Amino acid sequence: MKSTNATQLNCTSCKRREPFFFRPYSGQRLCKKCFIESIEKKVRATIAKHEMFSFNDKIAVAVSGGKDSLSLLQILSKMEKLCPKASIVAVTVDEGIRGYRDEAMEIAAAKCKELGIAQHIVSFTELYGYTLDEIVAKNRQREENELTPCAYCGVLRRRALNVAARTLGATKIATGHTLDDEVQTILMNVFRGDIVRLAKEKPVTDRVHSKFVQKVKPLCEIPEKESALYAYVKKIKFQATPCPYASEAFRNDARAIFNRMEESYPGTKFTVFNFSERLRPVLDSFSSKGNYEECSECGEPASGGLCKVCELLKQLR
Amino acid sequence: MKSTNATQLNCTSCKRREPFFFRPYSGQRLCKKCFIESIEKKVRATIAKHEMFSFNDKIAVAVSGGKDSLSLLQILSKMEKLCPKASIVAVTVDEGIRGYRDEAMEIAAAKCKELGIAQHIVSFTELYGYTLDEIVAKNRQREENELTPCAYCGVLRRRALNVAARTLGATKIATGHTLDDEVQTILMNVFRGDIVRLAKEKPVTDRVHSKFVQKVKPLCEIPEKESALYAYVKKIKFQATPCPYASEAFRNDARAIFNRMEESYPGTKFTVFNFSERLRPVLDSFSSKGNYEECSECGEPASGGLCKVCELLKQLR
Repeated sequence: MKSTNATQLNCTSCKRREPFFFRPYSGQRLCKKCFIESIEKKVRATIAKHEMFSFNDKIAVAVSGGKDSLSLLQILSKMEKLCPKASIVAVTVDEGIRGYRDEAMEIAAAKCKELGIAQHIVSFTELYGYTLDEIVAKNRQREENELTPCAYCGVLRRRALNVAARTLGATKIATGHTLDDEVQTILMNVFRGDIVRLAKEKPVTDRVHSKFVQKVKPLCEIPEKESALYAYVKKIKFQATPCPYASEAFRNDARAIFNRMEESYPGTKFTVFNFSERLRPVLDSFSSKGNYEECSECGEPASGGLCKVCELLKQLR
Repeated sequence: MKSTNATQLNCTSCKRREPFFFRPYSGQRLCKKCFIESIEKKVRATIAKHEMFSFNDKIAVAVSGGKDSLSLLQILSKMEKLCPKASIVAVTVDEGIRGYRDEAMEIAAAKCKELGIAQHIVSFTELYGYTLDEIVAKNRQREENELTPCAYCGVLRRRALNVAARTLGATKIATGHTLDDEVQTILMNVFRGDIVRLAKEKPVTDRVHSKFVQKVKPLCEIPEKESALYAYVKKIKFQATPCPYASEAFRNDARAIFNRMEESYPGTKFTVFNFSERLRPVLDSFSSKGNYEECSECGEPASGGLCKVCELLKQLR
């Protein structure tokens, strides 16, 4: 049967409905229904390929209230219904950022309620004695060694997530990192010449210490744009305003490079992601597994005597 | 002794002369003499570190007439005088690009004469029966599979250099690839996801077949800007007009990315170069050594039945 102009304009997947999205790297034009299905199918494929979950996992989903984490929660919640022995709990970290985090917390709470998922909130104040706002203010007073807010927040948020997940008895932490986050991190590590980090960052982290809950990234093969589109089509309310401290100039450079390259050469992000996955077996020789001890101060895993968290907090005091 | 403003403005190396160049990645301010010495010292260090030459090598220097190849010829010519058993011959490839190559050929010839180095010219017409101009014209007539001029020229120039060097009995081919060329190629291979090429491109190429003369890149740790500056200070006349066919959009993207990153984060080019050198030992497992046979048509090394050169020429006929 010869294709006519009319059928050419239909969704390339169902061949019936009107397309609303063109995917440059695959040439597909998709209707809303087929787009949603394609995202959920891709996430399932990623989870299967990287063996992210066991049938009886208790999954702590890191839910910030942004588009990626809420799309992830929605997709995993749907999948979980098919796995009677698996369970999901949402973990939201309250960094203490006035006028920003409050809105995200409400959005995350509403979504968890709608999906019937328990939400566990863990705050910087409760864990570290300071909000991020207070840490930033203290840091600005120090003369030397001034770190960016992101540098503090990254370390403290990762710890908070891990402690919360472990306390809840979770066997996995799922985060909403997208393809864009992953390839930006790869490029940043290349530009920093940091082979160890390049080796460390992957879809399923190595569990280098028994106190670490293993982290998985089910959206690592979903472009950020499509994660946002998924949230829009599914009418998921999310916080769209960026963090007031967002200051990672280096990541912004990497983002700009990839967005430009992807526009000129569609598929570049996937190519770079797959490139690093093919390098994975040889990169593993660079990652420092098993060098973890326990922090002399707090007992959490540390690569030196003092863990990074205690080191940062000590500098602040 | 306390440094005064006056001494602070002097060359950071000799502490006496007036600086004319600031090197952002090292913080040095150098006078012309110390700058020239720093370049020559760095090239010697690169040669030593990568064991590029033996004491009795006959070195075929690829001289196009551009700044990099002429700076290289000048530096190697000076070094050769200290090695009585080593010798240098210049090889210039005449691709046959009307209104462009002629000027470069004259400049290269004059420099060789000045340095007392024999120059051997090898032309596309003599080797392949066509000038590059003719190949481009023929290629434009073909409907499918249109390659860029650079795609033809790269393959044919590499072959021409190798055949010329081998015929002259050279034991090494030295090319003027700078740090910029190397890191651009690394990034292009990352964006293309080409691990094999990433593994293959290095300061000293593997000699995968006895008919290949080993290639070395003594300027691989010299930024292009400094290679140009070396030529200016040494009053080396070079061809500055770019090739009329230059059409490597992808390389231009990589160049722009690196120049922007280097400006924001001085030293990025070195970081990426060193990163790839540290990856080298594990990358080697991806490079396809020893898969070379001889081309069924011309007898030159080929990875398949027909070598790339014969394949391209066949398509043109």
